[in-house]
Amino acid sequence: MPPFNVPLGADALRAAGIPAPWAYGVADRVRFGEVDMLGHVNNVAYARWFETIRVAHLMDYGISDFNDPETKIVIRSIALTYLKEVHLKDDYILTTRARSMRNTSFTMDFAVWVDGQMTTSGEGVIVMLNPDNSKKPLPDAVRATLIARDGTEQT
Amino acid sequence: MPPFNVPLGADALRAAGIPAPWAYGVADRVRFGEVDMLGHVNNVAYARWFETIRVAHLMDYGISDFNDPETKIVIRSIALTYLKEVHLKDDYILTTRARSMRNTSFTMDFAVWVDGQMTTSGEGVIVMLNPDNSKKPLPDAVRATLIARDGTEQT
Amino acid sequence: MPPFNVPLGADALRAAGIPAPWAYGVADRVRFGEVDMLGHVNNVAYARWFETIRVAHLMDYGISDFNDPETKIVIRSIALTYLKEVHLKDDYILTTRARSMRNTSFTMDFAVWVDGQMTTSGEGVIVMLNPDNSKKPLPDAVRATLIARDGTEQT
Amino acid sequence: MPPFNVPLGADALRAAGIPAPWAYGVADRVRFGEVDMLGHVNNVAYARWFETIRVAHLMDYGISDFNDPETKIVIRSIALTYLKEVHLKDDYILTTRARSMRNTSFTMDFAVWVDGQMTTSGEGVIVMLNPDNSKKPLPDAVRATLIARDGTEQT
Repeated sequence: MPPFNVPLGADALRAAGIPAPWAYGVADRVRFGEVDMLGHVNNVAYARWFETIRVAHLMDYGISDFNDPETKIVIRSIALTYLKEVHLKDDYILTTRARSMRNTSFTMDFAVWVDGQMTTSGEGVIVMLNPDNSKKPLPDAVRATLIARDGTEQT
Repeated sequence: MPPFNVPLGADALRAAGIPAPWAYGVADRVRFGEVDMLGHVNNVAYARWFETIRVAHLMDYGISDFNDPETKIVIRSIALTYLKEVHLKDDYILTTRARSMRNTSFTMDFAVWVDGQMTTSGEGVIVMLNPDNSKKPLPDAVRATLIARDGTEQT
Repeated sequence: MPPFNVPLGADALRAAGIPAPWAYGVADRVRFGEVDMLGHVNNVAYARWFETIRVAHLMDYGISDFNDPETKIVIRSIALTYLKEVHLKDDYILTTRARSMRNTSFTMDFAVWVDGQMTTSGEGVIVMLNPDNSKKPLPDAVRATLIARDGTEQT
Repeated sequence: MPPFNVPLGADALRAAGIPAPWAYGVADRVRFGEVDMLGHVNNVAYARWFETIRVAHLMDYGISDFNDPETKIVIRSIALTYLKEVHLKDDYILTTRARSMRNTSFTMDFAVWVDGQMTTSGEGVIVMLNPDNSKKPLPDAVRATLIARDGTEQT
């Protein structure tokens, strides 16, 4: 069976014209259901894309399997800026990285790239919670992983 | 046929415990497809709700029918802050208003309310464009409508 | 707070031009995100509508709260026939009823109505399962409810 | 840039354990937003998947670019049968083929495969229309393409 949906690392992203420090991406193609009646990718579809790569990043990095009764990972806020339209069947690359972290949360950056040009950018704040919804300090292993793979800054 | 999906004005919103200056809302109920595997309304569903009420607001106010070849209405950015979880079958009220306007754009606020409490807030920047994607100054009629109905500030 | 999303019973449906034996419906309006690049309601949106009313029907009839560890309600198959296009901001009424039941399953009919005309029809087979995924006979209370409210035939 | 979203032909499908006569597929992975509160891929998500591969098939075969003012391609009906649950991050292959054709329509089969096992099957009837919504006979080039690539039967 052919490999597919393999995350792209720093080298593959540079080869696709995506600059440092992005180090985690996924390539995909615009689907019919993501285009709205105005003929371009719908604004909400990008929020879905950012969720998809956020979950893939957190699982691939071993930060969460979304099935741990001791830790909840929730999104506190999200922001998107629409720079250029994207259309049906366009090939694109999604990238994400944890830009900075605090005691109980971290901030992830997101971007969509078509032909090496950023077409949408975004960011989101992720919080770790205990089962009773109290804030949970990021475990040391999570901090180490984010620093090693994303160069995440402590702020 | 019974009235339904009737937008709620200022009086109806006050009666539902939603404070001034909100003056446009729509009541709805959480659907099965809006809840994710974590058991609460999915973060992307809120972006969809904000799009739904944004379009309803712009059409009801006569600002756009999304079918005018001379004017494109596009969203430049959107931001959402998640305050409280919402669950299957919860009744909620969506509100929106144009908070401020500049020469060629305006900023809309959004909120979700359950039992008179805000559970999600948001904002978005809307831009008017000519068919060639050059920026289009807001027509005087649009400015007058926003001021009269939403108390929009010129900034 | 104003009443909203109140299910429509037989009398309200007849008043809206929807014939017997339909006895359960919900009125709604087409949203921007349900229209695709071809300018009409997307074929997948109807499947979402049928899920929404199916869940509302099962909860309102007391058949499932989708939170019972002893009983799983799953959909075994679904079929949709597209009769007429529906467009942005069209008001429509969704209807559903359990047409027939067997030992461990029942078949639901679905329809979308605009101005008293059926625009999409559908059906789905619902199965009750025990936690180990073995088939579970429909409880007598469920049979009695379906017969009383939907006139469901035993087959 | 690595190849991605490359359609799989007959040889690749056989290597993945998918039998003849399937000759067109796409590999993908379940996303977070496709899983519902019951913990498995939502029934509506499959209808979206079938739309995605249907459009890809029609575009790749040169049957439609969804941008031809002289020809509309519409879906008349769709049916899905759910055989096995699929879960978050499962790798799957979607397949489709035009099984049979008549004068103005053709019937497509769909399937989802996980580890060589079919988990969902489906079919849909596609109709070609003129701009005035009258039925349009399938062009000879379309018939030839379907026979050559999918072994479509005339019925």
